[in-house]
Amino acid sequence: MMKLHFDKDGLIPVIAQDYATGSVLMLAYANKEAVDQTRATGYAHYYSRSRKKLWKKGEESGNIQKVVSILVDCDEDTLLFQVEQAGGAACHTGHATCFYRTIEGEIVAPRIFDPAEVYANKDE
Amino acid sequence: MMKLHFDKDGLIPVIAQDYATGSVLMLAYANKEAVDQTRATGYAHYYSRSRKKLWKKGEESGNIQKVVSILVDCDEDTLLFQVEQAGGAACHTGHATCFYRTIEGEIVAPRIFDPAEVYANKDE
Repeated sequence: MMKLHFDKDGLIPVIAQDYATGSVLMLAYANKEAVDQTRATGYAHYYSRSRKKLWKKGEESGNIQKVVSILVDCDEDTLLFQVEQAGGAACHTGHATCFYRTIEGEIVAPRIFDPAEVYANKDE
Repeated sequence: MMKLHFDKDGLIPVIAQDYATGSVLMLAYANKEAVDQTRATGYAHYYSRSRKKLWKKGEESGNIQKVVSILVDCDEDTLLFQVEQAGGAACHTGHATCFYRTIEGEIVAPRIFDPAEVYANKDE
């Protein structure tokens, strides 16, 4: 395994991309434990900076991410998870991708589910 | 324009993606000036954390990025630049994408140019 450069908080940014469509789904962060859990289980794990804990993507919504490949950038300080996105939606808002708006505010990605029906709370 | 959340250093992470192929090219950072310059010129500008200055992607290599769309994530703290990548290579190593290796170290993206021929120095 390649040596990774975690930041001063012990984190590395992770881009999640839909393996089949190429759609960029989200940016999240991983600590060493999240990287290890992702490799060990084959499902994307991240570190929640707001909740300060390891987080298996989809543990509440069911929208887990099966990891097809893990790529490393030139500086070894960013990861790219290429995933099969369960449920067709990565975003806690119910949209297919977290990048569902242009910088002008136009919505350009479909909403797949209603978060009020999926989450007991919305702080994922 | 949407309100963006810059971090305590005044930066926001930016994912650059090839608009035509969907390939994820790189992760970089922008300050407000870089976002403004990108919108004003139509070409990707970033903030170099190592050189501590505004940086027009490709200003040295010629591998500029024409921005087709700018997307914002759900938390308004990450941007996605969808670009036309000049020269077919985003990475200073000469590879098509900065994510040219798996976490096991296998090279999975082609090398397009020889950086020794393109850069006077390699600290981009």
